[in-house]
Amino acid sequence: MSLIVQKYGGTSVKGIDRIRNVAQRVAADYDAGNDMVVVLSAMSGETDRLINLAKEITENPDPREMDQLVSTGEQVTVSLLAIMLESMGKRAVSLLGSQVKVLTDSNYMGARVVDVDPLRIRALLKEKNIVIVAGFQGCDMRGNVTTLGRGGSDTSAVALAAALESDLCEIYTDVDGVYTADPGVVPRARKLPVITYEEMMEMAGLGAKVLHLRSVEFAMKYNIPLCVRSSFSNEPGTMVVGEGRDMENLLVSGVTVAKNDARITITKVPDRPGIASRVFSAVGDAGISVDMIIQNTRAGGLTDITFTVPKGDFKRALEIEKKVAEELGAENVAGDAEIAKVSVIGVGMKSNPGVAAKMFAVLARENINIMMISTSEIRISCVIEKKYAELAMRVLHSAFGLDAEEI
Amino acid sequence: MSLIVQKYGGTSVKGIDRIRNVAQRVAADYDAGNDMVVVLSAMSGETDRLINLAKEITENPDPREMDQLVSTGEQVTVSLLAIMLESMGKRAVSLLGSQVKVLTDSNYMGARVVDVDPLRIRALLKEKNIVIVAGFQGCDMRGNVTTLGRGGSDTSAVALAAALESDLCEIYTDVDGVYTADPGVVPRARKLPVITYEEMMEMAGLGAKVLHLRSVEFAMKYNIPLCVRSSFSNEPGTMVVGEGRDMENLLVSGVTVAKNDARITITKVPDRPGIASRVFSAVGDAGISVDMIIQNTRAGGLTDITFTVPKGDFKRALEIEKKVAEELGAENVAGDAEIAKVSVIGVGMKSNPGVAAKMFAVLARENINIMMISTSEIRISCVIEKKYAELAMRVLHSAFGLDAEEI
Repeated sequence: MSLIVQKYGGTSVKGIDRIRNVAQRVAADYDAGNDMVVVLSAMSGETDRLINLAKEITENPDPREMDQLVSTGEQVTVSLLAIMLESMGKRAVSLLGSQVKVLTDSNYMGARVVDVDPLRIRALLKEKNIVIVAGFQGCDMRGNVTTLGRGGSDTSAVALAAALESDLCEIYTDVDGVYTADPGVVPRARKLPVITYEEMMEMAGLGAKVLHLRSVEFAMKYNIPLCVRSSFSNEPGTMVVGEGRDMENLLVSGVTVAKNDARITITKVPDRPGIASRVFSAVGDAGISVDMIIQNTRAGGLTDITFTVPKGDFKRALEIEKKVAEELGAENVAGDAEIAKVSVIGVGMKSNPGVAAKMFAVLARENINIMMISTSEIRISCVIEKKYAELAMRVLHSAFGLDAEEI
Repeated sequence: MSLIVQKYGGTSVKGIDRIRNVAQRVAADYDAGNDMVVVLSAMSGETDRLINLAKEITENPDPREMDQLVSTGEQVTVSLLAIMLESMGKRAVSLLGSQVKVLTDSNYMGARVVDVDPLRIRALLKEKNIVIVAGFQGCDMRGNVTTLGRGGSDTSAVALAAALESDLCEIYTDVDGVYTADPGVVPRARKLPVITYEEMMEMAGLGAKVLHLRSVEFAMKYNIPLCVRSSFSNEPGTMVVGEGRDMENLLVSGVTVAKNDARITITKVPDRPGIASRVFSAVGDAGISVDMIIQNTRAGGLTDITFTVPKGDFKRALEIEKKVAEELGAENVAGDAEIAKVSVIGVGMKSNPGVAAKMFAVLARENINIMMISTSEIRISCVIEKKYAELAMRVLHSAFGLDAEEI
């Protein structure tokens, strides 16, 4: 007998028929003798519907009230699942974040979990209840409703699994696991049976939408094995675990592409101390986050500075840097939104220094120019022209031996 | 400066435009220097939508989970109104029943208010917030969400007014006050400027849907002046107050009709002690409530027993009494669902014994047969054939001098 935490995403609970499907899965695991804690998202589309109601009123709705508003989405699905399970003759109780309680800070619309009280859930499990918890939501010290940001239900599930010392946390979604690349771009992408927390975090940060980034951090911190699988099939899914556990011997586990950044270059900046600080504090003060940075020193005490910002902040950042360039006496400021960041990710590269060289060679062979490079211990990212993004993914996927045998 | 509690019903908050209308009314009273507490219902239709979702699953959904489900309706409207008021530059905070908190018993779907904690609202008012409270909902000792039954938002408003020692509780709805009769049936019905708690209770119990019965009980108990008025006009509405306060000198204040009962007659029951107990405990045990009862003694130690039950329980009650009649050796059991209960209501009749005689005479003049009669200190009800219901209302309305001068 195990204690299993299962999380079902929005597409898995959209409508009564799909909630019935979830109930049957949960009931089967319950009947097999497991203690079951189920975390649900809102029906897909519902959170957006609620946000749009608020946006009809104002572009900048009060964040506390937004959380009060959007948290109703999960409240509806958890009570409907409890009603469904009760109607099937199972004991079931739904709990809101505030009823558990999932204590968070007061950072509305993006709150962080501070503590999860396991007592009430434990008591309900002891009485053989299936406990259904509203994901995405918690409450602060004063009992105000908070939410954990988009995708936060994954984090709810992992936080509960940690607090309950669960044996397993299963994340049910509409894909059947974590793939070596987006199958829509790379037809030969294949599902990974196992991936490490670190790899998963790099992937989540680079546009793979399978798991909420913070949920993976949480799982790694408390060493909770995650299983990502589909609620629409019985495929085994992908296990996300600590390094060394049943890993395949892959150099690279995945290839990702992100197209949400734009590039800004300031040319011929007088190369004095404090220049970089001036360039980056200007955008930082405006709340714009900078991702990659490169600086090329030229002859004559001049330098070029290039960096990337989120596309949504591109125009604003460009305006700001034009002023900065004028003040500094730089030659020019240019921008380019037509870029893509292609990354290869894998814990295998920790012990293998040839990965970067191979990546550059593969891209060069296709005449794809590399504009910027950044690396972590388990990731190499290259900024390239956007039009080459799909080609780059496919050739890298193939070159690192990730292609499936058959399509 | 006063502390005003205002309650807006479902039609008043249906959609963003109507919520804007409510916000403007509230803001005007706030800007005039009043402390404002606003209680909202769900958008009209929303509670039914949620109930229907549950009914898609099962005919008998778990009551605790139903309350968790349907309480989201008010959560949406209160947060939207808070967002609206904030966008108009007012300070506003929405609170759920559990955040106030409105403590109730654990009788899900029809909970009774046990206590209302005024502290958090008082603190928020002190900081010049408009406090918006989700109506219809509370929570029990263990933090489970409860609801107060259909129309319960009126009770929420009055309970808050009592706890906050409010100067006035305004109930905004889609009619502009309490009428002497349903204007759809009696075109010459007119709006009452003032009505007593007791009259209002009789009316609420007899099918006038203006106020939730329990809210009037509560208002009377704590002597909270209620004002029933329309959110779509600036008409002054109807004041519901204690007796003696600015009353018109009316013998009868209103005429109502209820068509939700059916009649059952058991004929020629042997008239022994314990017979009535046997007849009524049988339906009582089945959870069926009996309203009016008459017993006619016949010659030969026999008696006829007639009583009314809610129409929804009619068939079941008939089956039960057929068995009882057989056991008791009664002659026959007959039923009639085509009945109506017409009532005249008025505190004036306390000191005027002629009202009943006049009512019977008026009905007799129209050849309307009276099947059953029941009275309270301020009400006389007659069961008649359903087809005469509208006629009876109009002639009684006219005979007791309630007709408006002009239509």
